[in-house]
Amino acid sequence: MKSSKHIVIVGGVAGGASAAARARRHSESARITLIERGPDVSFANCGLPYHIGGEITDRDDLAVQTPTSLRKLLALDVKTLTEVTAIHPDSGKVELKDLKTGECSTLDYDELILSPGASPIRPPLPGIDDPRVLTLRNLEDMDAIIRAARTVERVAVIGAGFIGLEVAEQLVHIGKRVSLVELQEQVLPQLDPEMARPLVEALKHKGVETILGDGIQSFGGSEEGLWTNLASGRSFEVDLVVLSIGVRPEGELARNAGLALGPRGHITVDGFQRTSAPSIYAVGDVCESPDPLAGGHAAVPLGGPANRQGRTAADHIFLGDKALPYPGSIGTAIVRVFDLAAGMTGLSEKRLKGADQSFESVVVNGPSHASYFPGAETITLKLIWSPDTGRVLGAQAIGKDGVDKRLDVIATAIRAGMTIDDLVHLELSYAPPFGSAKDVVNVAGFAAANIRDGLLLPIPTMKEAAGCQIIDVRPPETSRRLPAPGAKNIPLGELRERLGEIDKDRPVYTVCQMGKTSYFAARILANHGYDARSILGGAHHQIE
Amino acid sequence: MKSSKHIVIVGGVAGGASAAARARRHSESARITLIERGPDVSFANCGLPYHIGGEITDRDDLAVQTPTSLRKLLALDVKTLTEVTAIHPDSGKVELKDLKTGECSTLDYDELILSPGASPIRPPLPGIDDPRVLTLRNLEDMDAIIRAARTVERVAVIGAGFIGLEVAEQLVHIGKRVSLVELQEQVLPQLDPEMARPLVEALKHKGVETILGDGIQSFGGSEEGLWTNLASGRSFEVDLVVLSIGVRPEGELARNAGLALGPRGHITVDGFQRTSAPSIYAVGDVCESPDPLAGGHAAVPLGGPANRQGRTAADHIFLGDKALPYPGSIGTAIVRVFDLAAGMTGLSEKRLKGADQSFESVVVNGPSHASYFPGAETITLKLIWSPDTGRVLGAQAIGKDGVDKRLDVIATAIRAGMTIDDLVHLELSYAPPFGSAKDVVNVAGFAAANIRDGLLLPIPTMKEAAGCQIIDVRPPETSRRLPAPGAKNIPLGELRERLGEIDKDRPVYTVCQMGKTSYFAARILANHGYDARSILGGAHHQIE
Ligand SMILES: Cc1cc2nc3c(=O)[nH]c(=O)nc-3n(C[C@H](O)[C@H](O)[C@H](O)COP(=O)(O)OP(=O)(O)OC[C@H]3O[C@@H](n4cnc5c(N)ncnc54)[C@H](O)[C@@H]3O)c2cc1C
Ligand SMILES: Cc1cc2nc3c(=O)[nH]c(=O)nc-3n(C[C@H](O)[C@H](O)[C@H](O)COP(=O)(O)OP(=O)(O)OC[C@H]3O[C@@H](n4cnc5c(N)ncnc54)[C@H](O)[C@@H]3O)c2cc1C
Ligand SMILES: CC(C)(COP(=O)(O)OP(=O)(O)OC[C@H]1O[C@@H](n2cnc3c(N)ncnc32)[C@H](O)[C@@H]1OP(=O)(O)O)[C@@H](O)C(=O)NCCC(=O)NCCS
Ligand SMILES: CC(C)(COP(=O)(O)OP(=O)(O)OC[C@H]1O[C@@H](n2cnc3c(N)ncnc32)[C@H](O)[C@@H]1OP(=O)(O)O)[C@@H](O)C(=O)NCCC(=O)NCCS
Repeated sequence: MKSSKHIVIVGGVAGGASAAARARRHSESARITLIERGPDVSFANCGLPYHIGGEITDRDDLAVQTPTSLRKLLALDVKTLTEVTAIHPDSGKVELKDLKTGECSTLDYDELILSPGASPIRPPLPGIDDPRVLTLRNLEDMDAIIRAARTVERVAVIGAGFIGLEVAEQLVHIGKRVSLVELQEQVLPQLDPEMARPLVEALKHKGVETILGDGIQSFGGSEEGLWTNLASGRSFEVDLVVLSIGVRPEGELARNAGLALGPRGHITVDGFQRTSAPSIYAVGDVCESPDPLAGGHAAVPLGGPANRQGRTAADHIFLGDKALPYPGSIGTAIVRVFDLAAGMTGLSEKRLKGADQSFESVVVNGPSHASYFPGAETITLKLIWSPDTGRVLGAQAIGKDGVDKRLDVIATAIRAGMTIDDLVHLELSYAPPFGSAKDVVNVAGFAAANIRDGLLLPIPTMKEAAGCQIIDVRPPETSRRLPAPGAKNIPLGELRERLGEIDKDRPVYTVCQMGKTSYFAARILANHGYDARSILGGAHHQIE
Repeated sequence: MKSSKHIVIVGGVAGGASAAARARRHSESARITLIERGPDVSFANCGLPYHIGGEITDRDDLAVQTPTSLRKLLALDVKTLTEVTAIHPDSGKVELKDLKTGECSTLDYDELILSPGASPIRPPLPGIDDPRVLTLRNLEDMDAIIRAARTVERVAVIGAGFIGLEVAEQLVHIGKRVSLVELQEQVLPQLDPEMARPLVEALKHKGVETILGDGIQSFGGSEEGLWTNLASGRSFEVDLVVLSIGVRPEGELARNAGLALGPRGHITVDGFQRTSAPSIYAVGDVCESPDPLAGGHAAVPLGGPANRQGRTAADHIFLGDKALPYPGSIGTAIVRVFDLAAGMTGLSEKRLKGADQSFESVVVNGPSHASYFPGAETITLKLIWSPDTGRVLGAQAIGKDGVDKRLDVIATAIRAGMTIDDLVHLELSYAPPFGSAKDVVNVAGFAAANIRDGLLLPIPTMKEAAGCQIIDVRPPETSRRLPAPGAKNIPLGELRERLGEIDKDRPVYTVCQMGKTSYFAARILANHGYDARSILGGAHHQIE
């Protein structure tokens, strides 16, 4: 173990601070310098939206560590308000600029870890420089939004990804009138559209005006308000804009130093987070790692990966190739939008279609815990797998409770290379307040295996059934309350006696509320010789 | 696919009804007869305690299906209040007794599925037949307990396993004075003792008198009360006793029919739930399946396994060896005790010690979600793995929130054969309300790998450190409020400057609140040449 080396780290937050902490645990004699452009280190980026909305009341809670505490606890040389302006891989030097004094200097490194992160995209649109157009990355940005929001009423949030949704939610908490604009035809574009749809309902319910399939074109300012002009020609006036249309890796330093970059400007790294230059590592939002699911490299700009990549780089510095490599990110992410949680892990149908990879998918609904125990809420779970191997490729879930648990179970299964058959027999914790004897994850496995085995012939959504012979097997009351367009109601319990009412010469599609009894009905019909298919996911989220 | 066979199922609840349901989905023409000794089928056994305590308000909610609905939905021939009294494997017949009329008859089967469950143990103790000594297995038992509890105040619950704890909790809900007696020196004997300890605190806090390490010897009745006499000589008077000291498989039918049984009377089955007799399957609490972790066979009397085993038996009847075999149970279980949840998956330290298998373990504490976000609660997680392969063998967790999620993630990891290194890089869903960038499951993986790699030299509990040089690295206030016996307080931030105060010639043990900063301190000390070890899990649950 080399121990008196000088480790220089660029970026003092998730990836950088984690790398520094782990490095110090490997060695007390290493010199570790943490260089941060901003005034703060080790802050909880992910918590920023929640202080805007007052849910995290104390700003200090967001400072996980301070420069002082990092010096004290980790004996780091912390240089805040200092920017690294150039890297010289050949001579092992970085150039620094002290942003308080403007002074420049150089610093030798034995090992360099780059964790400069990614910055919010600000496209060069007319009016973008209006001081009322803000972005959110750090504590200062947050303070600016809080200050600006204090006295105004109308806010446009541009971009309905994870951060946009969180900001919109929190602005509603503090009584703002929020318009949410998204270029794609859905919110949370990381998800498949049908899985994100309930979020739009939730937003609407809370008074958020959601504008989909429209992009920002320009801003036009006056004293009274800021005109937000969309590509469709639509314009509306707000007092404040929060732009959250994605992030761009801070790869310029690396590019100028000649490091290998990916197509979107991320620093390409291997499993030990090594860049193309010797003794230079990159971690976090700035890098792209080998993609364990889709092949090639992928960037997943999230806190968990950044933290663990930072740890991996530090390990490799001290342990060499005996370190545990980072296995790549699979893209597990979640967001809370009012009382809903929605998230994903692994590959989406969208991405698989884009990559022309073969896949199968199913959507099931199930209760968050035993349905007979108070408080059970419906979880809608989409499972995506490879028809060739049965391996689970991805999952998406939405619901009021227990969404994170199901995503985490499937994220674990994906990491392990498990198949749909493995999900069938997962043995998950079950007592009435916590789960079900057949958890919705098991049920997703059942349904997937049933599709493969020809027991479940699925129709993805009600749309595909339009104009066909549809049998609605829900109780008559439900069927009347939420009619399924074009369907004839034959409750499941009467189906066997009323087979005569169904035309055997035409395909028959069954529908119910959750996708379960329609499957039961389709089994009955198929076993009686009908060409019967079941509409996945039922009326839940599809009718009304 | 044979389709006009007659499938006879003994037992109409979890395993039996699930088998019937799946069989019907395979075939409309099969004749399926469900025979149930009691008046009810398909009820939620697991919900019974919660109706006693009024948390499940409506008794009907516990009847997931009724004989009538099963006839209607699944076209089953349901015979309730009918007991199967003998099996004749050679002739393919069962003998029935109609419990209403006393009439006997025989029934031919092509395939027989046994799911008679397990009955509460009632040892032949003096006084055990007192009508105030009740057990809880079915709706009638529940009704009897509710009736008996209505007018009384003092209840003894004998046995502090999962059901005993649930019953005790629910009796407190309705204002009873509860004494809980357990033969072992801990509650929830399925867990390792240190992990179950906080439950005793929670019970005490709610006024439950918990008597450990003492067993029931006899009951002595009088009009005023029922004397409950323990092995220690201790006696106390109650009005009602609920006995929940475990269950015994209902294996007599199978034994009399010559089927192979295990040492404790369970019917031995293979992965397709086949018994030793042709065309006879056994599922649920009555059977023991191949044990995927410990080898041999194991019985796990829980709802999830029963349901999925029933499904497996039905699959094998229709698909033969193309059916997906049941992979054995790993023993994932959970219980809520007031505001705590506690559970386990896989093998415990106890069981591994009993089996003389080598293992390593670690206990870590971590927040249920981001600690800077309101509502985070500490989860204590114990991880057990094989030192030879690194494979995860088991886990136990306790806390107020998120315990089920962590158990389910690790249950999935165990099923997949994952190692401690795999836990390090699990990519779990993280947004502040749901998780942490380094989830406590990751941290358990970190700590386990650190132990293997010699970075974390653990002392299992504070007891083992007694009399040694202990450095308490918590802030002075915490250290004063909850003193660590025999420890010298040097807060982590001052450790490097105060190394001179620590005797380098003696081993030094570090302690903190959660087990994290003591690890940090031990790393500092070790890197300065001390023989330093960290006390796992910190003062949390250990001091006070
Ligand atoms: C509002 C918001 C909410 C989020 N919510 C979640 C969430 O819920 N879950 C989740 O998983 N992730 C979330 N993220 C993403 C997560 O915070 C990032 O993935 C993570 O912080 C990336 O870590 P990093 O170290 O790569 O970059 P950062 O944490 O951004 O740190 C990079 C630091 O480097 C500094 N820097 C850059 N260039 C230089 C230079 N040349 N010299 C010196 N310093 C430099 C920057 O000032 C910055 O402070 C959120 C992010 C934001 C902004
Ligand atoms: C109070 C309580 C709480 C529980 N809580 C949980 C929990 O939270 N989580 C969990 O996973 N598990 C729990 N369980 C366990 C779970 O209910 C069982 O594992 C599961 O029901 C076993 O299914 P089974 O089909 O094997 O037996 P059972 O569900 O018990 O069904 C067997 C049926 O067979 C009938 N029978 C027996 N012999 C004959 C015969 N000769 N002829 C005809 N009929 C016969 C019996 O009357 C009985 O109704 C709990 C059990 C109880 C009693
Ligand atoms: C604050 C910060 C510097 C801490 O880094 P860190 O010390 O590596 O991380 P943690 O405080 O989570 O502690 C994890 C370490 O403690 C150990 N640990 C934690 N709990 C433990 C326990 N109960 N027993 C033993 N070890 C434990 C872990 O094993 C790990 O050590 P290792 O890496 O040597 O294995 C860094 O996480 C940071 O800057 N965070 C804020 C920014 C951020 O993450 N943003 C994105 C998300 S909002
Ligand atoms: C009520 C009972 C008969 C139901 O049996 P079941 O029909 O097999 O079980 P479920 O109602 O959970 O439905 C599961 C089936 O629906 C399918 N399903 C569920 N949701 C679905 C959806 N949204 N889309 C498609 N299929 C779905 C599953 O794939 C499965 O079918 P399969 O076995 O053919 O693959 C049985 O579970 C029972 O008796 N339970 C009470 C007793 C008990 O379990 N006690 C212990 C726990 S308290």
